[in-house]
Amino acid sequence: MSDKNLTAVLLLSCPDRVGIVARISHFIFERGGNILDLDEHVDIEENIFFTRISWDMKDFTIPASELEQAFMPLAKEFHAKWDIHFLEEKPKAAIFVSKYAHCLQEILWRYSLGEFNVEIPLIISNHPDLESLAEEYGISYHVFPINKNNKKEQEQKELDLMEEHEIDFIVLARYMQILSSDFVDAYHNRIINIHHSFLPAFIGGNPYEQAYKRGVKIIGATSHYVTEKLDEGPIIEQDVVRISHKDTIEDLKYKGRDLERLVLVQAFNYHCEQRILVYKNKTVVFD
Amino acid sequence: MSDKNLTAVLLLSCPDRVGIVARISHFIFERGGNILDLDEHVDIEENIFFTRISWDMKDFTIPASELEQAFMPLAKEFHAKWDIHFLEEKPKAAIFVSKYAHCLQEILWRYSLGEFNVEIPLIISNHPDLESLAEEYGISYHVFPINKNNKKEQEQKELDLMEEHEIDFIVLARYMQILSSDFVDAYHNRIINIHHSFLPAFIGGNPYEQAYKRGVKIIGATSHYVTEKLDEGPIIEQDVVRISHKDTIEDLKYKGRDLERLVLVQAFNYHCEQRILVYKNKTVVFD
Amino acid sequence: MSDKNLTAVLLLSCPDRVGIVARISHFIFERGGNILDLDEHVDIEENIFFTRISWDMKDFTIPASELEQAFMPLAKEFHAKWDIHFLEEKPKAAIFVSKYAHCLQEILWRYSLGEFNVEIPLIISNHPDLESLAEEYGISYHVFPINKNNKKEQEQKELDLMEEHEIDFIVLARYMQILSSDFVDAYHNRIINIHHSFLPAFIGGNPYEQAYKRGVKIIGATSHYVTEKLDEGPIIEQDVVRISHKDTIEDLKYKGRDLERLVLVQAFNYHCEQRILVYKNKTVVFD
Amino acid sequence: MSDKNLTAVLLLSCPDRVGIVARISHFIFERGGNILDLDEHVDIEENIFFTRISWDMKDFTIPASELEQAFMPLAKEFHAKWDIHFLEEKPKAAIFVSKYAHCLQEILWRYSLGEFNVEIPLIISNHPDLESLAEEYGISYHVFPINKNNKKEQEQKELDLMEEHEIDFIVLARYMQILSSDFVDAYHNRIINIHHSFLPAFIGGNPYEQAYKRGVKIIGATSHYVTEKLDEGPIIEQDVVRISHKDTIEDLKYKGRDLERLVLVQAFNYHCEQRILVYKNKTVVFD
Repeated sequence: MSDKNLTAVLLLSCPDRVGIVARISHFIFERGGNILDLDEHVDIEENIFFTRISWDMKDFTIPASELEQAFMPLAKEFHAKWDIHFLEEKPKAAIFVSKYAHCLQEILWRYSLGEFNVEIPLIISNHPDLESLAEEYGISYHVFPINKNNKKEQEQKELDLMEEHEIDFIVLARYMQILSSDFVDAYHNRIINIHHSFLPAFIGGNPYEQAYKRGVKIIGATSHYVTEKLDEGPIIEQDVVRISHKDTIEDLKYKGRDLERLVLVQAFNYHCEQRILVYKNKTVVFD
Repeated sequence: MSDKNLTAVLLLSCPDRVGIVARISHFIFERGGNILDLDEHVDIEENIFFTRISWDMKDFTIPASELEQAFMPLAKEFHAKWDIHFLEEKPKAAIFVSKYAHCLQEILWRYSLGEFNVEIPLIISNHPDLESLAEEYGISYHVFPINKNNKKEQEQKELDLMEEHEIDFIVLARYMQILSSDFVDAYHNRIINIHHSFLPAFIGGNPYEQAYKRGVKIIGATSHYVTEKLDEGPIIEQDVVRISHKDTIEDLKYKGRDLERLVLVQAFNYHCEQRILVYKNKTVVFD
Repeated sequence: MSDKNLTAVLLLSCPDRVGIVARISHFIFERGGNILDLDEHVDIEENIFFTRISWDMKDFTIPASELEQAFMPLAKEFHAKWDIHFLEEKPKAAIFVSKYAHCLQEILWRYSLGEFNVEIPLIISNHPDLESLAEEYGISYHVFPINKNNKKEQEQKELDLMEEHEIDFIVLARYMQILSSDFVDAYHNRIINIHHSFLPAFIGGNPYEQAYKRGVKIIGATSHYVTEKLDEGPIIEQDVVRISHKDTIEDLKYKGRDLERLVLVQAFNYHCEQRILVYKNKTVVFD
Repeated sequence: MSDKNLTAVLLLSCPDRVGIVARISHFIFERGGNILDLDEHVDIEENIFFTRISWDMKDFTIPASELEQAFMPLAKEFHAKWDIHFLEEKPKAAIFVSKYAHCLQEILWRYSLGEFNVEIPLIISNHPDLESLAEEYGISYHVFPINKNNKKEQEQKELDLMEEHEIDFIVLARYMQILSSDFVDAYHNRIINIHHSFLPAFIGGNPYEQAYKRGVKIIGATSHYVTEKLDEGPIIEQDVVRISHKDTIEDLKYKGRDLERLVLVQAFNYHCEQRILVYKNKTVVFD
């Protein structure tokens, strides 16, 4: 793809100071970039500046391949953490599933409509159940059964497979296995999970049963990045639905299922479009 | 008030069996009662039947004063827990407050408009701050400062005062003191609290700070009956509002404040209208 | 299916009077029926009583085939409009579609999971586009192209086909053709449509464009029964989603699509379970 | 107030072109301004650029009084419509009311807490009913009874009174009089109304009655700028609440009342903080 057709996206965070927006936007402007979208945020308490800027490379005066190099001095001056991506160079995602189909189905259906700025080269599962669904959409499906004895080696095979396919990030679409620390470290802030509760309520197993037992009047779903601590990673998106005493546990699962798939899809979309910055176990989501 | 103008409300729960609705509605019908509203629910898992039935006493053939006596045999046969109230005999509530005005203000404003089926003879506080607000609405305001040495005796004075005024139930409108077990026992399932989080998330102090730190994308408020375990009583009503990374802790408090007052008012209203049945630390709310 | 396994559902409306609940529940009780669910409502202004009662036929002392006959005298006395269905005798629905897949896909997916109390023997369309989706779920797909010259005869063919399959009701899953009065009359209050706006706002064509142009901050979707007046039939279910100035017309369509399929599915479910009573161009939905 | 303590807010719209953000942020940066917040939006279809930029004047190298003059050339080059305000120079609002107290009460309560960046020197009404509420908060209350004969002259008196008090904008807090075109013109895009429906549904009188009759399942409230066409001005904010067949018209009014006051307060807040740009009968709200 020609540089002319690229859209650059800068995600940057740094200690707050005067002139960051002016300096960065001037950097882009003087090289012929047309800013398409600029969002910024300052965490006053922590004194951290965050921004997401996207621009059109059509009339850019330096090649895309030299952009990072050119931006480096400014980033250093700001002591910034930063990334530049080109939207047209789609990231690659692996979807992990177990037996529940709804999240996978929602993702594949939308993927087939071209909704996500992503490529999905493969689906990984610890069960064979959803293979036919994967086949329907023409995506390769790899089964790695996990038990307590083989977990380490199976995870290594998964990592190898993903490396081979140059996978950028992982989506756990109701994957019912806890990942090891090593695995999580390998994809730090690049594993998106959907937890079927309004976190931090009902961490761990069977959240609908927990919610039913507690007698809440609203249930939720939470999409978050996976960290070593179960269900405690940075939250990307949440949504809720009202319930009542009439609802059985089965009703909660039924109502929650729609939350799960829509919340996961939203978080997935944000990640694909480079809209998320993580800091202090929280997220800035520029929507 | 003449019996003719009364509206009876039966709240009943019992082991489920065939014919309960038929038998009770027949009991009312054969005595000339006109059923205005009938709600019922069965907890299939626990095999418990719940109902709220209200009827017009206009053409009732027995006096209101004999109604309980007349219903007793049926209730016994059903092994029921039950109460009959007449809506026109308004329950009496005491409002407990500390320094935050918004919940008290919301209640008093609506009370002054005649919205609640209740009488509010008195407001109790551990601080003098809201006395002028109470005065504005002509309700007596009693200050009982609490510290760790005087808690027992101060609570006893509060109980004595409430007994004197024949208080039926208590509303904690952001009352910032933990009640003793003895106090809670004295008003079992008759103390309504508003907790400024989406329970069971963020139990205890400073829930907005907790929510901010956890980085949730939605905050909530929960109204529940007070039990011995802090913030673990039966939930009556909850609501939520969306937040984002832009919101500071102050913004959370600002947004949460509207939730708190509206959720508390809703729970208060349900209680005043005898719409709540409690079982197994949960509520059935017939709205 | 043996009578023993049936669940009867009575939907009834009549002028309000004393004793209706008592009389009907007694009718069921004395014949050995176990009431599973009872909802009732009175429109005070119009003085109309509505009820939905379901009961277990396991120990019923008269056969299912004689139930209507047995209930007739009571219904006559009440001057009631009424129906008795058995949930296990599933109604038959025809789905009408054009080119948009999302509503059909949502229905067929859930149908394949056994969620709806319904049978879907056929799908009818004015376009061939969605045939492969129908095939995937093994449901026959019939194309009847419509133009202004052939509308009458094509509709007649559709009606014939549906009669042959004993279709009870119709779901318009984004069917982009206006039905003739004769067609609508043939399925009075038995055609469920999804309109992609928050009715009565944005009646007619291109509601998302209308909403965009008007600059609303919330969009909606509405499921309703079809009547002769376009988009003016009794509303069954509505839902909304927040938008902002950032959203293009395409974004509105994208966000609205999730509303459309979930609102339609909810209305469909209510109808399948005999939960809807229609009067005065409104609905009572016993959920 | 010293220039040092000021916060400047620029609201600007212009034909979109390359470099606007860079040029404006550079303008601020080179004069020592510290950008606190920057939001921008492009209406792609109309090719219009919008921005709201706020900055700290602490180290600004030109006086506040010369800022407009200094910015003028850039604005001209961009063919921009623009305003610069200083947040600390609070705008002045007049509140118009009739007989309903809830919106006024909500505004005055929050105003007394210091929530709004505004001064409210006076309340104007066509009825004396809410005078005591105004007095309670120490704000002067002026009654101008309106009938079809005196409307023109009474409105003139209102305009004179507001001019005398240098009123910047008007809030119609359930003011039950239609304003004349001349009056509306005098405060173009500076009159905020609350309409008690989800516009454009139920324009005009008695929207709750209209909603009840139509049988909607959700009701709403809409805050908008007043234009000559009744209820057709640019929408600032909307919100909704779910209702059911159980709700009477009185219930709709009761539920809607909470929507009305919260939606109006939100729109009021946006206006006070210079967050709204109007174009093509729509709003861009930078929240």
